[in-house]
Amino acid sequence: MSENDAARHDGRTPDQLRKVRITRNWLDHAEGSVLVEFGRTRVLVAASFTEGVPRWMKGQGRGWVTSEYEMLPRSTNTRSDREARKGKVGGRTHEISRLIGRSLRAIIDLKALGENTIVVDCDVLQADGGTRTASITGAYVALADAVEDARKRGLIAAKAQPLTGSVAAVSVGIVKGTPVLDLDYPEDSTAETDMNVVMTGEGRFVEVQGTAEGAPFDRAELDALLGLAEKGIAELTTLQQAALDAPARERLQ
Amino acid sequence: MSENDAARHDGRTPDQLRKVRITRNWLDHAEGSVLVEFGRTRVLVAASFTEGVPRWMKGQGRGWVTSEYEMLPRSTNTRSDREARKGKVGGRTHEISRLIGRSLRAIIDLKALGENTIVVDCDVLQADGGTRTASITGAYVALADAVEDARKRGLIAAKAQPLTGSVAAVSVGIVKGTPVLDLDYPEDSTAETDMNVVMTGEGRFVEVQGTAEGAPFDRAELDALLGLAEKGIAELTTLQQAALDAPARERLQ
Amino acid sequence: MSENDAARHDGRTPDQLRKVRITRNWLDHAEGSVLVEFGRTRVLVAASFTEGVPRWMKGQGRGWVTSEYEMLPRSTNTRSDREARKGKVGGRTHEISRLIGRSLRAIIDLKALGENTIVVDCDVLQADGGTRTASITGAYVALADAVEDARKRGLIAAKAQPLTGSVAAVSVGIVKGTPVLDLDYPEDSTAETDMNVVMTGEGRFVEVQGTAEGAPFDRAELDALLGLAEKGIAELTTLQQAALDAPARERLQ
Amino acid sequence: MSENDAARHDGRTPDQLRKVRITRNWLDHAEGSVLVEFGRTRVLVAASFTEGVPRWMKGQGRGWVTSEYEMLPRSTNTRSDREARKGKVGGRTHEISRLIGRSLRAIIDLKALGENTIVVDCDVLQADGGTRTASITGAYVALADAVEDARKRGLIAAKAQPLTGSVAAVSVGIVKGTPVLDLDYPEDSTAETDMNVVMTGEGRFVEVQGTAEGAPFDRAELDALLGLAEKGIAELTTLQQAALDAPARERLQ
Amino acid sequence: MSENDAARHDGRTPDQLRKVRITRNWLDHAEGSVLVEFGRTRVLVAASFTEGVPRWMKGQGRGWVTSEYEMLPRSTNTRSDREARKGKVGGRTHEISRLIGRSLRAIIDLKALGENTIVVDCDVLQADGGTRTASITGAYVALADAVEDARKRGLIAAKAQPLTGSVAAVSVGIVKGTPVLDLDYPEDSTAETDMNVVMTGEGRFVEVQGTAEGAPFDRAELDALLGLAEKGIAELTTLQQAALDAPARERLQ
Amino acid sequence: MSENDAARHDGRTPDQLRKVRITRNWLDHAEGSVLVEFGRTRVLVAASFTEGVPRWMKGQGRGWVTSEYEMLPRSTNTRSDREARKGKVGGRTHEISRLIGRSLRAIIDLKALGENTIVVDCDVLQADGGTRTASITGAYVALADAVEDARKRGLIAAKAQPLTGSVAAVSVGIVKGTPVLDLDYPEDSTAETDMNVVMTGEGRFVEVQGTAEGAPFDRAELDALLGLAEKGIAELTTLQQAALDAPARERLQ
Repeated sequence: MSENDAARHDGRTPDQLRKVRITRNWLDHAEGSVLVEFGRTRVLVAASFTEGVPRWMKGQGRGWVTSEYEMLPRSTNTRSDREARKGKVGGRTHEISRLIGRSLRAIIDLKALGENTIVVDCDVLQADGGTRTASITGAYVALADAVEDARKRGLIAAKAQPLTGSVAAVSVGIVKGTPVLDLDYPEDSTAETDMNVVMTGEGRFVEVQGTAEGAPFDRAELDALLGLAEKGIAELTTLQQAALDAPARERLQ
Repeated sequence: MSENDAARHDGRTPDQLRKVRITRNWLDHAEGSVLVEFGRTRVLVAASFTEGVPRWMKGQGRGWVTSEYEMLPRSTNTRSDREARKGKVGGRTHEISRLIGRSLRAIIDLKALGENTIVVDCDVLQADGGTRTASITGAYVALADAVEDARKRGLIAAKAQPLTGSVAAVSVGIVKGTPVLDLDYPEDSTAETDMNVVMTGEGRFVEVQGTAEGAPFDRAELDALLGLAEKGIAELTTLQQAALDAPARERLQ
Repeated sequence: MSENDAARHDGRTPDQLRKVRITRNWLDHAEGSVLVEFGRTRVLVAASFTEGVPRWMKGQGRGWVTSEYEMLPRSTNTRSDREARKGKVGGRTHEISRLIGRSLRAIIDLKALGENTIVVDCDVLQADGGTRTASITGAYVALADAVEDARKRGLIAAKAQPLTGSVAAVSVGIVKGTPVLDLDYPEDSTAETDMNVVMTGEGRFVEVQGTAEGAPFDRAELDALLGLAEKGIAELTTLQQAALDAPARERLQ
Repeated sequence: MSENDAARHDGRTPDQLRKVRITRNWLDHAEGSVLVEFGRTRVLVAASFTEGVPRWMKGQGRGWVTSEYEMLPRSTNTRSDREARKGKVGGRTHEISRLIGRSLRAIIDLKALGENTIVVDCDVLQADGGTRTASITGAYVALADAVEDARKRGLIAAKAQPLTGSVAAVSVGIVKGTPVLDLDYPEDSTAETDMNVVMTGEGRFVEVQGTAEGAPFDRAELDALLGLAEKGIAELTTLQQAALDAPARERLQ
Repeated sequence: MSENDAARHDGRTPDQLRKVRITRNWLDHAEGSVLVEFGRTRVLVAASFTEGVPRWMKGQGRGWVTSEYEMLPRSTNTRSDREARKGKVGGRTHEISRLIGRSLRAIIDLKALGENTIVVDCDVLQADGGTRTASITGAYVALADAVEDARKRGLIAAKAQPLTGSVAAVSVGIVKGTPVLDLDYPEDSTAETDMNVVMTGEGRFVEVQGTAEGAPFDRAELDALLGLAEKGIAELTTLQQAALDAPARERLQ
Repeated sequence: MSENDAARHDGRTPDQLRKVRITRNWLDHAEGSVLVEFGRTRVLVAASFTEGVPRWMKGQGRGWVTSEYEMLPRSTNTRSDREARKGKVGGRTHEISRLIGRSLRAIIDLKALGENTIVVDCDVLQADGGTRTASITGAYVALADAVEDARKRGLIAAKAQPLTGSVAAVSVGIVKGTPVLDLDYPEDSTAETDMNVVMTGEGRFVEVQGTAEGAPFDRAELDALLGLAEKGIAELTTLQQAALDAPARERLQ
């Protein structure tokens, strides 16, 4: 197959996102919550706001934002063992949890948050590629809701602006020689190169993680992938904003 | 408040279930899957069928059915730590996982299943009381779907009848002196006595677990609770059957 | 074999307990200790009284009673691995530890105990069925001794009455179609239904845990089992009282 | 107090053992079992014989003997946490388990044992100093019984002689300037030097472990301690032999 | 400070590596071993060759290369707890171990390796920034030696070419507004952006991992950093080749 | 073979140490650090001084000295798994860590140290027998440097004398019937008896740990081994003193 007619297995063009859905307040209790879907990938995000910070941060006048990511055992095509049963968190899980936390902290002013903590749980209900990018994209919306909720309850000052911007993430990769946007699992598992890009709504980079799964890639390929990512992030930013502009279901308290 | 006008806090009568919803095939990949809701309590159940049995059962011509239960960290009103992060599964989690597994095995003919294993994962997305009874009630439906799926794919014989009946569960308890059916969290946390009852569709007992949280209870109270449970199970059995009678969304393979 | 001539394998009648022995102060240092024997089942119980409560209970003016149960590796017919070596406590061990703790708290007034903690360790030296019911029955006696010891040492007020009653436990089950009392291991491993019942000395229920190991059971069978349990508990209550009425060996301090 | 009239706190002379009791077949199921008491120190020893050896030893025609030591949480004056709950075995526990295993292997001909394994569990029911030496001394008797039991059941050849001798252990130490034999806990906790000596019945050394708890010791003190140990071991050897010469209660099979 | 006079704190120019030393065969037993130093950063690398592959890879005619990274507790300025004592491997440790493994596999033909396994241990003796990039750079040399050693011993075919190229890594970052190469710890801890780049000797990318520690970065900054990395990798490739061209001390066998 | 011609496999006489090297300040940051070599055995020792003591020692005016020992996975002839990956510290590792700690505390006046803690890490880079004795011998030098460093920085009083003497360790054993000093791995793995001796510079015993690996040993053999150890320790004490008398490279702060 030549690159020209490289129709993707699900009919998308190389620079096309999957259908993205962001459902706010999917949970009744969490200060912010989102069910985010990138095609079949489905992640439940819950942002929990609590007053106070971990002991090692006390008295510095700064807050903390962190994240934990986990996959349900049957989110994947074949069942995986639970990490709780194995008694330890795997390397990949740690890696992604840390990535989400760093990405969110890139657009949070911890001083403006005050001595409060927000933990963002990203639990993958169904996995079809891009679970980390869907998590980050949904996590921003849940985080924004949790910050607004805290403001309404008077836990942060009315004029405080802890959010300094928005953040979203998308994967790009080289599949059968063609750079493509937002890989699903069949594409991801055959990609020669796979890159996850996290950017702010203003188009600046927060994280760039590219890996040659097959042959190493050259500078031109890298540039093509970055261009695709910039396009995808811009669209995701629009979708995040639309979700936040819509009225949200009331949270129980 | 006298017992006569003991309206429950959500308006239900003492012998009334919460609104129960059973959504089949909520996941695309699992051989059987259900999103089961008892009011606000929401559990995602996935039944995974695999050929073969654990090593210690090989060569006996019998299959195995087991279950794992876990709560998402923000399923509850305030966030709980992940068991995977704590590095061990808590006592309550073990206890409920074992209960679900035993309940399902009560209506499975392991010989008829052949040397195959079904693991039923029950992940609580939102908890509002009755998570173990919702899990069992939903798990039966997911299990039935997984068995049918295996039959269609020729993994069990066309004429094999691994299911010997149906099973459902409900909680009953004494709240402010009144025996009530299907406690939600506010009721559960103030109940004097709390009992979980697992029964077959034919009305026989599989498990009876009653605990005096406050004052010990007498034989008359025990009898009243068992009566309520019998009524609730009969209704749940009807709902399970209705869900299974409806056409299900096709599973991806 | 008809039910009429259902002699049990050890010659007991269906409603007969095994020989029960309760030896107080089997240890020199524990505030209360008991070697309790139900036939060959032999459990060493130690009640440890310490001033203060866990951090999460401080300042509430209430005490705490909890329990830990464990089996020695060769308490059973064939050796089992130590849980300490496996690095985790098994589900069954957790489940029984929690049951014993709840049972004791049912007859303790935690306010009257003041901000003190009693941990009751139940270590099974030899197992022949009924280890959890023997543990609870012995634990009550050790607990009563620990409370008296604290009173003598002035750690609780002379007039405080932390014990609100007594508690004992027994197993009942359906073996070869016959409801029987206090199953030993050969009976337990072949029972169709197995139920553990915890009751106060006044005959009220604290816990009822019935499980259909084979065929589910009906309401009539359940009633027969509860009747047997009531008879057994009454006898155990008499034996506990007799043990406590006897003068105890002095504890070393 | 001058060294001349250094009566020990319990009235013993410097070279006197505590009262030692060895009760065989304290358990009904273990192939060999002993309740061994050195004064108030009380250890339950169970020797479990199983056919076969660990995977890494298969096919070499040799057997394996190992040991596991653990203290019950309230064996000591104040309660210690269970190692199973802490999720790991402590350094001291490992150290003593390994010492007991090595000591037993010093008098076992693993070839003569054939491809069989004996695990000797030493569980300290009550601790008052010398738990490791009591364990070794009792373990030899339980091991001898387990070997005879295997011979009777035809699991080792009638003429095989796996035991090449006997082994016993005793502690010695310098307390208030005086070398003494078989320290109890009050002595052990104040000793300047503490030494555990393991010897065969023929008077040869298997292990010598001396530690200066306070001031380092010189060669003359070391020699005095070794002399005391030799005397104590000779007496323990006699007691072991007497226990083995007595008829033992029959083991259940 | 303007960019023009941006002397680095140790006097280097922005595009200058620290002094790099690669000492082969620092260990007597390992099939390949290197002490690699990037300035004060000092990593001991050992490549262990063993015949056979993990169970899940057997029979596919392919080998396996993996890596484990760990820091000694006092490699850092203040002591850190050992991961072995904490009972779990931290997220950062996992992340770096996986990165090193992937980097090495990018230049290994696993088919040509045959069913053999090479584990490359990277233990950081002293940390001063760039421990992961020093590890990868040294690991390639140790891996090359291990492959040659296997060839000499006839464990891989004389003509097999498991190495398809070389691989090295370097960090780049933006410090006080200036893009610099090979950050040491004082630079790394104040960098606004930090990027690790892994490339082959032919100048193709294997991994690109950039993180905005402070402000997000734009495309121009990203391009500048990639340019610096390309220069650094070229120099490291030359140093690796020089090290491999020198005669190595003989390994003990 | 008679003792006269008992040439050892590496040409040493029975009472000859291997070549011992003590390199101070091998690390830039640790308060005291030593690379100690006994022949091929190579241990990196780092002494970390921190103000304050563990919680359980606070307010007693005493300091604390402890040690942690670990082997790098490829320090040995064949690779061993990392303890951090296995999730638990092995018995042998615990045992040696505790031995080193006790040995150092024998020559430390904890009162004179004040409420400060010194942790001495001993990481075995290469193992060829005697890793624990090399560790202790090197640890004394690192400890002495850490104490002097604290004095210079005013963290302990100028006149305080926390060191009450020096300590060193050596192994002795019976190899092919001959008592020899400082066994290397080939000797250690074939020794009939193996003994580790820790002594002060004044020639008093701190620890004596002798083990019959093969046949038990008699009193005459024990005496011969102790004599050899006394000779070896005297030589090691001289080497330690020489190392400490030499000027040390300055530590970075």
